[in-house]
Amino acid sequence: MSTADFLGEIITTGNELLSGRIADANARYAAVRLHAAGLKVQVITILGDAAPLFQDTLSRGLSRSRFIIVTGGLGPTEDDITAAAAAEVLHLPLRQDEYLLARLRECFRLRGLPWEERFARLALVPQGACILDPNGAACGFYLNHQGARLYFLPGVPREMRLLFDNYVLPALLLAAAGGEAVCERTLRFFGLHETELEDLFQNLAQDHQGVSVGYYPNFPENHLTLTVRGPKSEALEKKLEAVAQELAAQAGDAFLGGSDDTLEEILGRQLRVRQLTLAVAESCSGGLICHRLTNIPGSSDYFQGGVVTYSNRAKVNLLHVPESTLHTHGAVSGPTAAAMAVGVRDVFGVSYSLAVTGIAGPTGGSPKKPVGTVYLGLAGPQGVKTRHCLFQGSREEIKILTAQTAMDWLRRELQ
Amino acid sequence: MSTADFLGEIITTGNELLSGRIADANARYAAVRLHAAGLKVQVITILGDAAPLFQDTLSRGLSRSRFIIVTGGLGPTEDDITAAAAAEVLHLPLRQDEYLLARLRECFRLRGLPWEERFARLALVPQGACILDPNGAACGFYLNHQGARLYFLPGVPREMRLLFDNYVLPALLLAAAGGEAVCERTLRFFGLHETELEDLFQNLAQDHQGVSVGYYPNFPENHLTLTVRGPKSEALEKKLEAVAQELAAQAGDAFLGGSDDTLEEILGRQLRVRQLTLAVAESCSGGLICHRLTNIPGSSDYFQGGVVTYSNRAKVNLLHVPESTLHTHGAVSGPTAAAMAVGVRDVFGVSYSLAVTGIAGPTGGSPKKPVGTVYLGLAGPQGVKTRHCLFQGSREEIKILTAQTAMDWLRRELQ
Repeated sequence: MSTADFLGEIITTGNELLSGRIADANARYAAVRLHAAGLKVQVITILGDAAPLFQDTLSRGLSRSRFIIVTGGLGPTEDDITAAAAAEVLHLPLRQDEYLLARLRECFRLRGLPWEERFARLALVPQGACILDPNGAACGFYLNHQGARLYFLPGVPREMRLLFDNYVLPALLLAAAGGEAVCERTLRFFGLHETELEDLFQNLAQDHQGVSVGYYPNFPENHLTLTVRGPKSEALEKKLEAVAQELAAQAGDAFLGGSDDTLEEILGRQLRVRQLTLAVAESCSGGLICHRLTNIPGSSDYFQGGVVTYSNRAKVNLLHVPESTLHTHGAVSGPTAAAMAVGVRDVFGVSYSLAVTGIAGPTGGSPKKPVGTVYLGLAGPQGVKTRHCLFQGSREEIKILTAQTAMDWLRRELQ
Repeated sequence: MSTADFLGEIITTGNELLSGRIADANARYAAVRLHAAGLKVQVITILGDAAPLFQDTLSRGLSRSRFIIVTGGLGPTEDDITAAAAAEVLHLPLRQDEYLLARLRECFRLRGLPWEERFARLALVPQGACILDPNGAACGFYLNHQGARLYFLPGVPREMRLLFDNYVLPALLLAAAGGEAVCERTLRFFGLHETELEDLFQNLAQDHQGVSVGYYPNFPENHLTLTVRGPKSEALEKKLEAVAQELAAQAGDAFLGGSDDTLEEILGRQLRVRQLTLAVAESCSGGLICHRLTNIPGSSDYFQGGVVTYSNRAKVNLLHVPESTLHTHGAVSGPTAAAMAVGVRDVFGVSYSLAVTGIAGPTGGSPKKPVGTVYLGLAGPQGVKTRHCLFQGSREEIKILTAQTAMDWLRRELQ
């Protein structure tokens, strides 16, 4: 049996999950590890503490999944209905597990907690259930129902993870015929539309059978994830590396890197290895470039600082942009962007500088210079260049596109 | 009809969610706000991009829920199956929405992207669908199927939230109240714990029967949502206004305002009405204050600009911080914060200025000045003040807390 047929699902229960008060940590914890191990989860269901909906979900699961992981609802309170509700669905009597009961009593004694009769329901499990017991640290059980593997785990993340790691994952890997390996890699692109990425991949899909692809717009970037399954992870890594390299080559400058490489990190590394320094002059991006650059720990090694010059006065006083340039060409112009870039480079005494001036909107546009009009300046050892862009979107989107495009320009320049 | 009967569910789709590669942000975003507004979600289902399971889940949803919110699968690629799969379940033909198609073409044109025929599938929606259209910023649709309300939203969180906030939540609140009017108001607080907020409300709950409350943390702020139902919306608004005013009074300076009032908007209004101007000098916040201030349209009327001075050299050259101050007290100190505030105020010739210097980490801390140590300076007509803060969290969290605390300080100052 290949893992492709070995489909499973996860059911997490708890009203606090439906209210959004608590993010579901258990389902994601299991999903990440199952996926990495090549086991396919086809659905995750998050429920409250009501029995009927849980029972309906469990029945559906039994009809379509080879394994089901249920978390939550195993506690001592009235709303802990999992064991009883499951027993009903599986047409099994609830029985008291004497061993579990004794162990629970012992745990309470050791923790100096008074035992109450209502706690006895903690030991009520469907007949035939196998207790998952890491020496009393948590409390869950396993059932094999007509070939389907059912794992019932506590909702407390620490306990759930203990049982998942020690019992569930190893057992499922064995069950899935040794379990194929799975390798996944995410590639980041800027400047290519999702559909252009799809074309890139289609061009080389036939040379790389078995590599599945997913596209995730991640404004202002586009991400692509390659997944491949097989017996030997070394071979899979090789295969992924080959596809990734071909894609990167075809995408050219639009390829940013692997999932961990944010644009500011890449740029930071480029500057660091060459011992270059950077300063930024921002108008319409309003400090976003500085903010992103300084999100990187250690950025002070190469980022000297920046100036946000909204007013003409600031452009003149701080960056020494000639009054005549502002007068002749306007604040939003190539010459002003160039003067800002040179000015901030000299003021901070850095090797490279970026400058931005434009109209983020929603007001301030004109027929000649509509909202979204942005001029970029890049000053470096070889002198200064400017670029004209016309962005589309909300004020915030225009700021984001402006910052990304400016930083990406320097990245390409340094490549 | 009471909202107790008005049960709904959320279906999010995307293979990246099942692999756990991406945490589901959309379902939780919706769940928190629906819960806070008193609307009950009974199940959240996370699926991949396979049509059969989605169709089965949608059918189950129709049999048990009054509203269903679906996110994801509305894109232009092959794995975007939502619209077609839903049409099949609902026995509706897919039709091309000419208006949507025209708008898409226009968006592509404005963004300078070449139009391709396959993009037309973006405009294929089930017959009778009502397009949710915030002027081309996102793309989703609504269907009423035998009394059940179905909302199909994009998977891109930014777009999903835009449609959810503007179309889905208001419409569901109306629907849930049946003939009744329903009023909802969110109040924002900074500097009060969620539990402190809860206490505040408990104090006056008995005087305001029928007002339901929900809390959700919105780092670094805490938000509280009040909901009331009744025959006359005027009366409800009065009631909400009364509760809101009492809460605001009890919270004092910690009360920021209604849901639409971001801190940067409030601060902007304060400066605008008094015709005051502002400049900012940032070190460890790295431009985040400037970025937030300039997110507000028209901020150039009062925000003159800022300086991000990571290096001492920049602090001296641009802000005229005395070398002796840096030498005697260090870059991260009250005197330096004060000198930066005075310097940036004078350079930009503004009425008020904020200055920040600190250690965002993860490195750079010392026993005397650990990571999270931040000094704030505020210069105004009455002179200059400084504040010492010690924040905890990641580098980004410390930047966020620093920016928020500095802006909030000026807000309280101007109040």
